[in-house]
Amino acid sequence: MYKDMTINPDYVRIFDTSLRDGEQSPGATLTSLEKLEIARGLARLGVDVIEAGFPAASPDDLEGVRRIAIEVGNPPAGDVETSVHVPIICGLARASKSDIDAAWDAVKHAAHPRIHTFLATSLIHMRYKLRMDPEEVVDRVREMVSYAKSFCDDIEFSPEDAGRSDPEFLYLVLGEAIQAGATTLNIPDTVGYTTPEEFGELIAGIVTNTPSIENAIVSVHCHDDLGLATANTLAGIRAGARQAEVTVNGIGERAGNTSLEEVVMALHTRRVAYGLSCGVDTTQIARISRMVSNYTGIPVQPNKAIVGANAFAHEAGIHQDGMLKHHDTYEIMRPETVGVNRSNLVLGKHSGRHALKVHLEEMGYELTNEEIDIAFKRFKDLADKKKSVTDADLEALIEDQVYQSQEVFKLDGLQVACGTMGLPTATVRIQDAEGQMHIQAAVGTGPVHAVYQAIDAVVNASNVLVEFNVHAVTEGIDALGEVTVRLQAVNGSIPERTSPQNGFSHARTFGGYGADTDIIVASAKAYLAALNKMLLAKKRYSRAETVLVK
Amino acid sequence: MYKDMTINPDYVRIFDTSLRDGEQSPGATLTSLEKLEIARGLARLGVDVIEAGFPAASPDDLEGVRRIAIEVGNPPAGDVETSVHVPIICGLARASKSDIDAAWDAVKHAAHPRIHTFLATSLIHMRYKLRMDPEEVVDRVREMVSYAKSFCDDIEFSPEDAGRSDPEFLYLVLGEAIQAGATTLNIPDTVGYTTPEEFGELIAGIVTNTPSIENAIVSVHCHDDLGLATANTLAGIRAGARQAEVTVNGIGERAGNTSLEEVVMALHTRRVAYGLSCGVDTTQIARISRMVSNYTGIPVQPNKAIVGANAFAHEAGIHQDGMLKHHDTYEIMRPETVGVNRSNLVLGKHSGRHALKVHLEEMGYELTNEEIDIAFKRFKDLADKKKSVTDADLEALIEDQVYQSQEVFKLDGLQVACGTMGLPTATVRIQDAEGQMHIQAAVGTGPVHAVYQAIDAVVNASNVLVEFNVHAVTEGIDALGEVTVRLQAVNGSIPERTSPQNGFSHARTFGGYGADTDIIVASAKAYLAALNKMLLAKKRYSRAETVLVK
Repeated sequence: MYKDMTINPDYVRIFDTSLRDGEQSPGATLTSLEKLEIARGLARLGVDVIEAGFPAASPDDLEGVRRIAIEVGNPPAGDVETSVHVPIICGLARASKSDIDAAWDAVKHAAHPRIHTFLATSLIHMRYKLRMDPEEVVDRVREMVSYAKSFCDDIEFSPEDAGRSDPEFLYLVLGEAIQAGATTLNIPDTVGYTTPEEFGELIAGIVTNTPSIENAIVSVHCHDDLGLATANTLAGIRAGARQAEVTVNGIGERAGNTSLEEVVMALHTRRVAYGLSCGVDTTQIARISRMVSNYTGIPVQPNKAIVGANAFAHEAGIHQDGMLKHHDTYEIMRPETVGVNRSNLVLGKHSGRHALKVHLEEMGYELTNEEIDIAFKRFKDLADKKKSVTDADLEALIEDQVYQSQEVFKLDGLQVACGTMGLPTATVRIQDAEGQMHIQAAVGTGPVHAVYQAIDAVVNASNVLVEFNVHAVTEGIDALGEVTVRLQAVNGSIPERTSPQNGFSHARTFGGYGADTDIIVASAKAYLAALNKMLLAKKRYSRAETVLVK
Repeated sequence: MYKDMTINPDYVRIFDTSLRDGEQSPGATLTSLEKLEIARGLARLGVDVIEAGFPAASPDDLEGVRRIAIEVGNPPAGDVETSVHVPIICGLARASKSDIDAAWDAVKHAAHPRIHTFLATSLIHMRYKLRMDPEEVVDRVREMVSYAKSFCDDIEFSPEDAGRSDPEFLYLVLGEAIQAGATTLNIPDTVGYTTPEEFGELIAGIVTNTPSIENAIVSVHCHDDLGLATANTLAGIRAGARQAEVTVNGIGERAGNTSLEEVVMALHTRRVAYGLSCGVDTTQIARISRMVSNYTGIPVQPNKAIVGANAFAHEAGIHQDGMLKHHDTYEIMRPETVGVNRSNLVLGKHSGRHALKVHLEEMGYELTNEEIDIAFKRFKDLADKKKSVTDADLEALIEDQVYQSQEVFKLDGLQVACGTMGLPTATVRIQDAEGQMHIQAAVGTGPVHAVYQAIDAVVNASNVLVEFNVHAVTEGIDALGEVTVRLQAVNGSIPERTSPQNGFSHARTFGGYGADTDIIVASAKAYLAALNKMLLAKKRYSRAETVLVK
């Protein structure tokens, strides 16, 4: 459970909500396989709690949380629990019985399950969103926390819009939640509006005035709309909070949530100033950052603190001034501490299947024999083309494989001619789910447009491409190109996605990823991967509707 | 000068150092034309001070600052000064006569010039970097501030590594600087190490204890290594600082400087809490953000506060819950406030040259007749290919033009074949400075590799490609693709670049940008643009060496 919770009052629990609040970023829609891989990465990272999703949102969401509860929320078979860190698996639920039922149904499979329920406590939300009196809100909180407690010992409650709630009312509601069995009280700055001073005072007020607060852990959940999420979170911790809700790379709606890596590294680097600790293995930070970025398709800017490509750039190709013998004159963190300096040349052209398998296991990938076979073939192809194959290349290949694993349509062949001297033209050969081959040619404004037109002629699923990005995985012009695309279905066949917290709906966005030394081939793969995701979602929703109609 | 400085004690001066500290980001090397365009954008934005560069670094840097001083640091000819905001133009100088001479030589052409000089005051820096006694440091500061003052009324002094300096010594040095004529005292958190509480206390101590502090403005300069730059800057302002040193998009070495947009929007959105104002026109923020990102090649992540693509994403395609009539339930800023909602469909296929010219002027571009001709031809080509031409498309076209304007080698033709069924092959036709045509063909691991091999066969300038990125300018698969590349010369022909502050040297990196509906064509343009920059730099340095040898 918590690594150091029982013995140390200065231990800060890291609650990762990348898979719940982070996944609400526009376009961050993840497949359940991707969610599972990220959850495994978070367990390796050593977070205390994984908020794995919002099970009541759809049968699909419930299933995703359940799989994580089973596979990541339990110690490996045959292992003695104490030797391995097993995170708490948490599911979000509105303050209603059906939501709590769904959450429990999903998380109960974990060794350490948690139900997280919430209800707004500000006047504006109670009046206009909930249409409830304050008394009704108190009753509902008492009732629903008790209901959740009847299933599960570990209950978290969040008073939504706490920052704009009447403090006295807030203390009352929180006290009632503790009485009813809540063990964690999470205070959100839902709209990213507070200053560090204000947020610190809010937490200090709660710690001082809430009845029986000594029986619960206070948690903070901040948003970065004004660039203050990390500072607000640290101010909350200073004022007595002992859980921080964060996401990897700070992903999330709008400007996102508090960055896991910033809070962890501030506590780590300034441990004397803060006098607090957490259980995260900082050397796993770079890897999980890259995984979340690739799976969600949300890039990390080079000047992002801790995980940006330049964060430690003064390490590379630098000659220190002869007089500067003292490392700490200009350096406050070592890149190795966050896992940046990994071996570069890892495997050569002549490395065998076993060496690859062992290396991938060291990197944290758990692949079946069949998957290893495919990966090995692709590795050999790449090693023929590229001077050196690095960890980053391998990650790109494996992620490309994970993305292509739920295929409906599969790229079998591609041929493109383009340039300034003619009309960009593409020919594709695509295999459908029944194994039948389709060949189509098309012209476009450029090679990617031509390829996408040719694919559309086969697949016929109307969409708008909302984002298209390519970048090179490593230095050098012979590098693998990674392509991420995001697209939206246009004809309303897929229901919009509603946020449990604010009731807003977004059109569903589907991301696709492809990697190849030929960026046009990678673009075709990424587009097909996104189309396949969209088609699978369509199928699921038409199934769900059929069930509802019965 | 300062928009509201003389009358309002609660006015916070915005000092933009994108062109000095920001340009020190690895790979952010800008041409003087790009610097000038950004400086114009900063003046439109309404910043109070533009730190335009470090004139002593090279004749080229001096010339860049001088051009900005002349063209951006003066009211338009014939205009009455009071009607137009003219920013202060500042040049950085180490505490030496030759540096101050160079700085003055560059900034003296501005209506409001400033010299900014600095010297370290921490024990570790004084002992190991400067090899000076504290007494010698005090003497040098007094002497050099006086020397700068003999040229210029407006003098800024920074005690480097102030955070680790002995407070009493710091007060003494700062007091001496004021006595010698410094009008602004800038306190840097050089390594991004402090917490908001510590930084606020540092500033409060300075405001309370420095002799004659009422005769100077205190300034803050923070770095984002722990994700706390914005919070530290605001804490400093709360404690009495009235100038904030910032960069657009928070660019800068490592994790970068404080973000201009975050500080400005925190002061704006929370004006009741802070009770302070600044002179920035917030509606210009989105445009300058995009310009700086494109010219430096440093992308902005979608979840970046204020300027990220998702920062206001809940505006697009959202159906609000019927109960939510109150905008401010979930919204703290309007996208229009930062200039996000611009007209989308701006010009059609049949728009004339005059309409384009007027529109580009409205967008802030000042182009010659010849440049308009080229832009118009490209606009017509694009309008033929693409359904609608937006402001973003026009910006991409103009920036592509600016990038290609200092051409040595020019792409005349390109032909590519690629896909999974053969060997990616490219043919290029390139015109050199003498007008001679060169044709080369090459194979590669992908189409970009093939194109770059073919270009290398013509241009023959060894380099390592350190970054390669493509993204679509707008939604839709017929969009323009923007390519940014960054490369480094490999054979030591170009001297490394040394930071004035910390003495570290980086290998010079050259960025290139290209935009086309065909991303392979855009890739070829971007690569040639970067190569051309590299070749021009080589020429400049071999010239500089010749002068030195004499």
